[in-house]
Amino acid sequence: MNISKPEGASERSAERLVHVPLEGRAYDILIGPGLIGRAGGEITSRLKGRRAAIVTDEHVGAHYLEALMDSLQTDGIEAVSLSLPAGEKTKSLEHLSTVCDMVLTARIERNDAVIALGGGVIGDLAGFAAGIVRRGVRFVQIPTTLLAQVDSSVGGKTGINTRHGKNLLGVFHQPDLVLADSAALDSLSEREFRAGYAEVAKYGLIDKPDFFGWLEKNWKKVFEGGPERIEAIAVSCQAKADVVVEDERETGRRALLNLGHTFGHALEAATQYDSSRLVHGEGVAIGMVLAHQFSARLNLASPDDAKRVEAHLREVGLPTTMGEIPGELPPTEKLLDAIAQDKKVKGGKLTFILTHGVGQSFIADDVPPSEVLSFLEEKRPK
Amino acid sequence: MNISKPEGASERSAERLVHVPLEGRAYDILIGPGLIGRAGGEITSRLKGRRAAIVTDEHVGAHYLEALMDSLQTDGIEAVSLSLPAGEKTKSLEHLSTVCDMVLTARIERNDAVIALGGGVIGDLAGFAAGIVRRGVRFVQIPTTLLAQVDSSVGGKTGINTRHGKNLLGVFHQPDLVLADSAALDSLSEREFRAGYAEVAKYGLIDKPDFFGWLEKNWKKVFEGGPERIEAIAVSCQAKADVVVEDERETGRRALLNLGHTFGHALEAATQYDSSRLVHGEGVAIGMVLAHQFSARLNLASPDDAKRVEAHLREVGLPTTMGEIPGELPPTEKLLDAIAQDKKVKGGKLTFILTHGVGQSFIADDVPPSEVLSFLEEKRPK
Repeated sequence: MNISKPEGASERSAERLVHVPLEGRAYDILIGPGLIGRAGGEITSRLKGRRAAIVTDEHVGAHYLEALMDSLQTDGIEAVSLSLPAGEKTKSLEHLSTVCDMVLTARIERNDAVIALGGGVIGDLAGFAAGIVRRGVRFVQIPTTLLAQVDSSVGGKTGINTRHGKNLLGVFHQPDLVLADSAALDSLSEREFRAGYAEVAKYGLIDKPDFFGWLEKNWKKVFEGGPERIEAIAVSCQAKADVVVEDERETGRRALLNLGHTFGHALEAATQYDSSRLVHGEGVAIGMVLAHQFSARLNLASPDDAKRVEAHLREVGLPTTMGEIPGELPPTEKLLDAIAQDKKVKGGKLTFILTHGVGQSFIADDVPPSEVLSFLEEKRPK
Repeated sequence: MNISKPEGASERSAERLVHVPLEGRAYDILIGPGLIGRAGGEITSRLKGRRAAIVTDEHVGAHYLEALMDSLQTDGIEAVSLSLPAGEKTKSLEHLSTVCDMVLTARIERNDAVIALGGGVIGDLAGFAAGIVRRGVRFVQIPTTLLAQVDSSVGGKTGINTRHGKNLLGVFHQPDLVLADSAALDSLSEREFRAGYAEVAKYGLIDKPDFFGWLEKNWKKVFEGGPERIEAIAVSCQAKADVVVEDERETGRRALLNLGHTFGHALEAATQYDSSRLVHGEGVAIGMVLAHQFSARLNLASPDDAKRVEAHLREVGLPTTMGEIPGELPPTEKLLDAIAQDKKVKGGKLTFILTHGVGQSFIADDVPPSEVLSFLEEKRPK
């Protein structure tokens, strides 16, 4: 793996740098404690513009906005900020309009930056605005959740939700810099940290069996903070970057990142995206276990691998079965509908990420819906 | 030039094909009479999807929507349509939202198409929607004005207006096919055709002196229709395509396409985009004459070239002086403000497209605002 220490990092020995070598739009991901307080210097050393428009949410803003503004000011960046309500509902056309208006009012030009300070919601929304204002201005991600640091802040997918579904409007707009402040994760709830950890484990399960083994041994230190946390984030960012560079627009291999997500999304939809019942990472955790169990049922993988995955995720405190989701689930046919989404697809075969074992996942585009139906029927709580 | 006749064109001898060889996103521009009535076949032979969402305006829709729908149906494309009010005000976030909702309701997937049937307003709006629905679906341009056929339908710039200015939100989203039906131009008013012709002449003035000479001889036939009109559109599309392939995102050479546009946009702003006083192409015509006169004043070009340009544009019936714009113009300082836009730029030097003579334009990024001011002061009506 190509993870190096950035220049001048001797006194910040834990810091890591992941370079994303997209042609003409290469960018750095820095991972380490205290990056929010050093954001100004990291930005001015990489971007030409000296104006910035910060988008954050009310929770994150209360914690980190002042430190970020101070750092930008110290380095001569003229910044304005906008704090939006926290939560998935902020990913709306109405809020996109508000953000774009604020960015234009701040006279952000192509070389200036929109900065997203927050989790995936803020990153997706601010990134979309950065992608369409003047047909694209610079974009800096400062993700403050584990989920955003290891997943949504890397790779350029942006978007908002519509009445037709999630992320149905958006653009591919790569960031010009990602600052993953590992210390910011200390303010996350245990549940939120665990949900992000599901995506960390996912990278091991896709194609890094050694990393999964390392996580089995070191997960407690990742939760506690310190070098292991930074290492886990860096390996995850590198894994995501590798896939994105190979297949930026998801015409092939990038689909592997959906391991656990097909079942997971269906469960999120089945619980009406009610975060008191299920958050995204929890859906992914259950989904990954189901993907391994389903692969075993199809004689593609050993049942022992499914047991191993389930054991680890359970040990860290993640849900691993549908029965752990509070409240009633809809009928199995409805779950399958959510998986198939489109009637056209339902008539034919389904595409799933399946596996031959830990770290050996693959894209299967010939899964019969009837197999999924009977599998889900067996696994759902009776 | 690389303009060929498309296959099967023997019986449609006048038809031309311009290929835009963008890497991974190459597309064809077909130019000829009757293409709207053959759209279904041209689309199905190039695109995989069999659904389409047509966006048009009430004027154009009344003329051509039925023929287009019939052709799509004949070739097995399931299509829905949306007719919006004609005019620049339709390039709004509100209408973008309406278009996206209609496209999503029609279950347009990545390989299906959004089709723009109309002028630049419809093309810019529908193209923006096509660029953001599912982070990009296929896009077919069927431009029905000369301006759209030779300029806005080629090159992938899309956008809407905001209270801060024109085209401030948008994406680069290349079409997958452009069908320029030359017969559709017969229904344009003389004034509208002339306005589009200003952009045709522009390609000669940028770097094709022979083409400008050809236009001086053949412009009447271009206005009348027939092979010369198709030839003029094809040469223009090829010229634009060449620039776009070289510099898709306007970081360099693409700026040459702004010949006449810096002065032209300032005049459009000065007349509050009131089309009864000035339409875009008329502003460009005056702007191109001013650009040649200004270049002569700076001893970059011969005054004879400016006279030649003015003579031709006047012969076709375009305005060539600020004095021809009905109503009062704002003070010269205000015109300069509109040119400089940003205070930062105003303090320093301005970027203009200047020329060494017909077909010898270049990017000048060191124009002193004081020179522009005294030039405009001299040229404005007293």
